Amino acid sequence: MAGMSDLQTRELLCELLRAFYLRGWVSGTGGGICALDPDGNMLLAPTGVHKERVQPADLFVIDPRDGSVLRPAADANLRPSECNAIFRAAIGERDASSVMHSHALSSVLAGDLAVDADHIAIRDLEMLKGIRGLTNRDTHLVPVITNTPREYELTDQVEAALKDDRFAGAYAIIVRDHGAYIWGSDLWETKRHAEVYHFLFEATVARARR
Amino acid sequence: MAGMSDLQTRELLCELLRAFYLRGWVSGTGGGICALDPDGNMLLAPTGVHKERVQPADLFVIDPRDGSVLRPAADANLRPSECNAIFRAAIGERDASSVMHSHALSSVLAGDLAVDADHIAIRDLEMLKGIRGLTNRDTHLVPVITNTPREYELTDQVEAALKDDRFAGAYAIIVRDHGAYIWGSDLWETKRHAEVYHFLFEATVARARR
Amino acid sequence: MAGMSDLQTRELLCELLRAFYLRGWVSGTGGGICALDPDGNMLLAPTGVHKERVQPADLFVIDPRDGSVLRPAADANLRPSECNAIFRAAIGERDASSVMHSHALSSVLAGDLAVDADHIAIRDLEMLKGIRGLTNRDTHLVPVITNTPREYELTDQVEAALKDDRFAGAYAIIVRDHGAYIWGSDLWETKRHAEVYHFLFEATVARARR
Amino acid sequence: MAGMSDLQTRELLCELLRAFYLRGWVSGTGGGICALDPDGNMLLAPTGVHKERVQPADLFVIDPRDGSVLRPAADANLRPSECNAIFRAAIGERDASSVMHSHALSSVLAGDLAVDADHIAIRDLEMLKGIRGLTNRDTHLVPVITNTPREYELTDQVEAALKDDRFAGAYAIIVRDHGAYIWGSDLWETKRHAEVYHFLFEATVARARR
Repeated sequence: MAGMSDLQTRELLCELLRAFYLRGWVSGTGGGICALDPDGNMLLAPTGVHKERVQPADLFVIDPRDGSVLRPAADANLRPSECNAIFRAAIGERDASSVMHSHALSSVLAGDLAVDADHIAIRDLEMLKGIRGLTNRDTHLVPVITNTPREYELTDQVEAALKDDRFAGAYAIIVRDHGAYIWGSDLWETKRHAEVYHFLFEATVARARR
Repeated sequence: MAGMSDLQTRELLCELLRAFYLRGWVSGTGGGICALDPDGNMLLAPTGVHKERVQPADLFVIDPRDGSVLRPAADANLRPSECNAIFRAAIGERDASSVMHSHALSSVLAGDLAVDADHIAIRDLEMLKGIRGLTNRDTHLVPVITNTPREYELTDQVEAALKDDRFAGAYAIIVRDHGAYIWGSDLWETKRHAEVYHFLFEATVARARR
Repeated sequence: MAGMSDLQTRELLCELLRAFYLRGWVSGTGGGICALDPDGNMLLAPTGVHKERVQPADLFVIDPRDGSVLRPAADANLRPSECNAIFRAAIGERDASSVMHSHALSSVLAGDLAVDADHIAIRDLEMLKGIRGLTNRDTHLVPVITNTPREYELTDQVEAALKDDRFAGAYAIIVRDHGAYIWGSDLWETKRHAEVYHFLFEATVARARR
Repeated sequence: MAGMSDLQTRELLCELLRAFYLRGWVSGTGGGICALDPDGNMLLAPTGVHKERVQPADLFVIDPRDGSVLRPAADANLRPSECNAIFRAAIGERDASSVMHSHALSSVLAGDLAVDADHIAIRDLEMLKGIRGLTNRDTHLVPVITNTPREYELTDQVEAALKDDRFAGAYAIIVRDHGAYIWGSDLWETKRHAEVYHFLFEATVARARR
């Protein structure tokens, strides 16, 4: 994150977790977030904790090349999020520096719209312009992958979606019955993309019910 | 609650009541919460009060074996919650140390889905993993019991549901037209289970309307 | 309000307006509230102002017998709410000491359910017990009156509903296309009744859509 | 804004952006707001920023006659909102001194109701009285214009709608697939109109789904 110190990045990660929690995107200890620190390593939230209560010292420092823990959380009882491999895939394939993982109901219901399909198509919404590179005339395809028992088992599907030309303009992957991964070039873009994609999911679900 | 003092437990109970109120789970003085204190006695919120305004001194100390009041609330006008017997049943049968009682609309609408059935089935949702012991491949049965004029009259049905092998993996009981009881091994697990079950109720109701 | 000073009553009125605003019940300067002060006079919020910003000195002191202004708001630009006559009717007929007026969407949609009828029937909900005197076995009739161009023109219909034996157990009147009046024996009961009735409206509307 | 200093106007603009953000009307950096300062120049929020984080020094001073920047934001990286021309049209044609731009889902869904029409009709709602000049007996027509790739390209349609006699009583224009522009004679009226129109949109959408 250009211009932000390690502590500022940690504090913003925790602030965004609190904001996402209030929106219902990371409830019940679900969901998560990461961002690269000034050294290019990945700050990762712990797994299995109430996400709105995560503190700066609770974050793990992860090597983005191999996922190894460079520095654990201050509390030895914490374990790093299972999103580790998926977050690194998005960062590696898409030049992202931050990824959030949503458990929002709207992302699950949006995934339900992909009946016999591996994506949903979002169109006719000005808010598409909130996704980097899109215009409001675009039909935006968001990949929908199949849920697996363990989170790390999603990685192959995530990588395939990231490499799929149809989804080259997407900054999100929906996991059926589960939620979504959303990323950006920095934490602020991840926040914007998260707000925009959740709006797009809600709008598309509402229109499908008419 | 391991590691928490009596006062910390009381303060967390009040904090969670405020959080649940903001979610619409304990509005109109409805709903409630309890947890075991460091001595193994049950701290119980009072009945008939605005739950978001309960203070640490407003809690009753209840003997979990027989439900008798060991120490009343500081305010002599307060009476202990009618949930007393049900809370003790969950604690006794399931090794829980905390139970919350929700009046959320989503729990009522989820109960409505149990037409001619004594349970609802929840499936195909990652958030199932937020319930202790479950995987996202499980079909999770939540018992739905019939409402009674007085809350303590629910106790027999609650105990039968707790002993029913089909519901051995459930940490919640829905009361038709009324709400839900949700418990956990400590207050944090009760909070997590409350957030997860309400998500599961909302998702299942939304999908049933498609 | 027994045990509350004039200032405490004024502050609680303003606090409840802020809480109601956050729930969407008094948005766009709509809705209102009143309560009797320790002298038995009616403290009344002003009309046409953003209700979440009302301050204690903004309240009018009204003679509950004839509606005359005993003491105006400190700000000479303020005018008393048009709810004056209706609030006094509820206080006079029902021994209420506080009334709130909601513009909630749920109250409008609940009124829509009264097709060719002068009331809605609410049943099969535990939250009915949150209304003084009701059990969860009751079928509760809430009168629905017809909207008029000016608020004071509702008074005749309000008085007729208050005197109608079918509605003797009601603490609320729905005004079609408009909202609801909800009262209680003191401000805390009015708060409880407001939360309960809005829940009952939301539940009844949701069930009608199944 | 009569009686408000330049700083007070700037602070209120930022406060309202935060309030609108919490309502979901300006998420994902979308939406915006403006108001005339004591000198009659237009204070305009920047584009492409998280609207709930806009500070008083971030606002541009715009000449309302030609849209030129009289004084930029303190941060040289900021650019003025693309709403510039549309905001000036509303101010010029309608004697408004403040305009807000909403990206609320309810405004998009309300626009969807205008199938083969250039407006929606809102009726049978008391909240119509919250729009200056309306009674609750009015059928209120709100123009619905067609979205364009760039925001400034909407200006011709906005100006045509503002000059259309059918819409002489409207303080809002819906942009299909996009959102709404809502204005008032001062910031407080813009706030009231914004709350009222969003209520009217939500109510009209909910009734259309029955």
